[in-house]
Amino acid sequence: MAKAPVLTPRAEDFPRWYQELIAKAELAENGPVRGTMVIRPYGYGLWERMQSEMDARIKATGAENAYFPLLIPQSYLTREAEHVEGFAPELAVVTHAGGKELEEPVVVRPTSETIVNASFATWVRSYRDLPLLINQWANVVRWELRPRVFLRTTEFLWQEGHTAHATREEARDYAARIHREVYADFMTEVLAIDVVLGRKTPRERFAGAVNTLTLEGMMGDGKALQLGTSHELGTNFARAFQIRYLSAEGRQEPVWQTSWGTSTRMLGGLIMSHGDDDGLRVPPRLASVQAVVTAIKGEESVTAAREIAGRLTAAGLRVRIDDRVDVPFGRRAVDWELKGVPVRIEVGPRDLRAGTATLVRRVPGGKEPVPLAALAGLLPGVLEEDQARLLRESRERRESRTAEVRTAAEAAEAALSGGWARIPWAVLGEEGEAALAGQGVSVRCLVAEDGSVPTADDAPGSVAIVARAY
Amino acid sequence: MAKAPVLTPRAEDFPRWYQELIAKAELAENGPVRGTMVIRPYGYGLWERMQSEMDARIKATGAENAYFPLLIPQSYLTREAEHVEGFAPELAVVTHAGGKELEEPVVVRPTSETIVNASFATWVRSYRDLPLLINQWANVVRWELRPRVFLRTTEFLWQEGHTAHATREEARDYAARIHREVYADFMTEVLAIDVVLGRKTPRERFAGAVNTLTLEGMMGDGKALQLGTSHELGTNFARAFQIRYLSAEGRQEPVWQTSWGTSTRMLGGLIMSHGDDDGLRVPPRLASVQAVVTAIKGEESVTAAREIAGRLTAAGLRVRIDDRVDVPFGRRAVDWELKGVPVRIEVGPRDLRAGTATLVRRVPGGKEPVPLAALAGLLPGVLEEDQARLLRESRERRESRTAEVRTAAEAAEAALSGGWARIPWAVLGEEGEAALAGQGVSVRCLVAEDGSVPTADDAPGSVAIVARAY
Repeated sequence: MAKAPVLTPRAEDFPRWYQELIAKAELAENGPVRGTMVIRPYGYGLWERMQSEMDARIKATGAENAYFPLLIPQSYLTREAEHVEGFAPELAVVTHAGGKELEEPVVVRPTSETIVNASFATWVRSYRDLPLLINQWANVVRWELRPRVFLRTTEFLWQEGHTAHATREEARDYAARIHREVYADFMTEVLAIDVVLGRKTPRERFAGAVNTLTLEGMMGDGKALQLGTSHELGTNFARAFQIRYLSAEGRQEPVWQTSWGTSTRMLGGLIMSHGDDDGLRVPPRLASVQAVVTAIKGEESVTAAREIAGRLTAAGLRVRIDDRVDVPFGRRAVDWELKGVPVRIEVGPRDLRAGTATLVRRVPGGKEPVPLAALAGLLPGVLEEDQARLLRESRERRESRTAEVRTAAEAAEAALSGGWARIPWAVLGEEGEAALAGQGVSVRCLVAEDGSVPTADDAPGSVAIVARAY
Repeated sequence: MAKAPVLTPRAEDFPRWYQELIAKAELAENGPVRGTMVIRPYGYGLWERMQSEMDARIKATGAENAYFPLLIPQSYLTREAEHVEGFAPELAVVTHAGGKELEEPVVVRPTSETIVNASFATWVRSYRDLPLLINQWANVVRWELRPRVFLRTTEFLWQEGHTAHATREEARDYAARIHREVYADFMTEVLAIDVVLGRKTPRERFAGAVNTLTLEGMMGDGKALQLGTSHELGTNFARAFQIRYLSAEGRQEPVWQTSWGTSTRMLGGLIMSHGDDDGLRVPPRLASVQAVVTAIKGEESVTAAREIAGRLTAAGLRVRIDDRVDVPFGRRAVDWELKGVPVRIEVGPRDLRAGTATLVRRVPGGKEPVPLAALAGLLPGVLEEDQARLLRESRERRESRTAEVRTAAEAAEAALSGGWARIPWAVLGEEGEAALAGQGVSVRCLVAEDGSVPTADDAPGSVAIVARAY
């Protein structure tokens, strides 16, 4: 008898599958204010792991964490002209507080460039104060017309980096370092998503930036998801907020800046990259629960499950025990499949008599008996193998569903049929890009022919990656 | 020649000393919107250490982290009558968003009971779903009329726990467990503040609680600071939000709840407990930088400082290098004193010739030469000794400045002259409490004669701790 599907199959309705997975795996749910979300403990556990892995990489580049206010005077937003134009339509505005109407309305931060730079202007005096490398973990609010959990939410959690440097070159190198050593490294090595590193076209750039670097992943339906961006801001904000330093040569100079961010949107990318028709599949290096030890039935198996879990925890694994022997075993198995825990260790009376447990692997699938004594030694290798397999699947999907094309029409066709197109930027150009936009297709980024990131908007030989995007 | 004081002495003007210390130690500064604050990297590093120590203790009680929305429909706040009365005057209200006036205004969370419990109502079905133990790390906004950095800010960072239980006893025991195993343990063992654990009088209770447990510390000026609270909410919110469970006996029952919180206010408590006229003194177990290795001058001492720092880091200490040999040594020493780093290791050419470094201890004061080879072995003991000394000083201050009194007038006098008073609650009573309030003096908490926490408002033999408070 075939199992009734737990989720709507991806091939039938990908957006519905996504929503069902998020609900049934208890990752998140909608909040009462339109577009907001409640991140449930299992989803938040994944975010905590993302934070911890990212935070270590961010600190390794020399940046320190700080915290800037949520509430920003409305007038600050208007100081950088492009910036306010980009964000004005999405602002949430506090007009009343403490029982009174405010003299000047304040906005809930949509991003923190303005308020951070107001502080930088007082912190930076001389070249000795540079580089100034700051990161913040925070919530931001951007009013969304078409919200979707994790992907576009009115409030989301993120990290935003803000730095000031003495020269254009130092700022450029630092933005590139974050792009590669922090973001690409984390996404490839931990999230197991085969991201493409590229440069945004002027049309797609961050409001106020002179250059935006991006990381784009291909989701299970062939659409693209922007997973992070790192911006060179030039001296735009330095001029708007008067951030100047006294150089070693005794001149007052504006600082050169960067900003960069990644958010809970990565949870959406995780689901759409690795999820299958049975639920999520969490890469082992990311997993907040790498192994769940399930007692099938009876006191004896509960005791054995605790013993095994203790040994695996001592071996450095992140382990949970499932001792709910009064809940049907099949239902529990379905739950852990939905949540995508990399391995399950099932122990029942029959296993115990044989001195084994049953190892169930979420990524390749399949069950096999393993001697109890061998488990702790075996699992690290199993987890690394499954981590590598997820990254390989991600790369193979991107490669097999990316078409090399020569015309804008072919690019649109590839994108609209659920894949990516690569087309010479010299062929497409800004006019072609604008035409694609009318069909809901965009240039996700520009890459050099050798796969590196172009260092200028008009770098010869650049290739545009064209896709539909979330 | 006497040094010019870096800070206004505490004895001269305690509030001014506090503000100057926060600015000069680069802990925080005011944000542009009245009452908000920027937490600078050194201050935020201390908060990160608080988070990490607290988070581990919270998780050890079985709670999991989650995240609930910042924005709450205004109507939610009104569902629990006492709750809305307590918070209405402090609310910040978003009336416009996405370029339009909202149909229903939304408030920026002042605390999350209402929005958390709206979710709990859908998560809890049967006794199997209980206890439900949730914690959240988040920012909250309460409009402050008399803001002061860290102590009363319009926005602050905190953790707030929210739980649901099957019985009154389980809720009571869990609130008490958080009070003792998480908060008291952290504050005593890490913050080195000798907190008093007590029960709030009905007058001082959290809006919507049936019992509030508190931890009160005596600051350097003899005033009290409430450092954390843990509430029993009874079934107040369960009834307002219809959180019911099916009991094992098949009956629909309301859940019994708790909530509990600590915030960046603890940074204010840290400063006012341990700061002296030279700056902050950070307890070693809390310190984000436990040891700073200072190169006095010349390449050779920079190289040596790096080597020493490497060895100390390898030994598990949190270490920073100060290799700014172009900045006058005296100025750097003053900076580290201000920041309160527990130990400084100074290395200059003279030390190196002698095969030693100079160990400077912030807590007891004093300098001594230490053989380089002995440093890593010596420091853990030194740090634990200084940790213990700070706690001892905190306890001695509280004991020496607390008076046993028999009348409300004596209690007021003790409080107004910069100390605490202990007075039988049966003598003071609610009328006496109201009279003290007119003089800016409050009952911080009730304790039992043996120092334990009274289990009822009218428990016989309760003693009121009376003080002025922040």
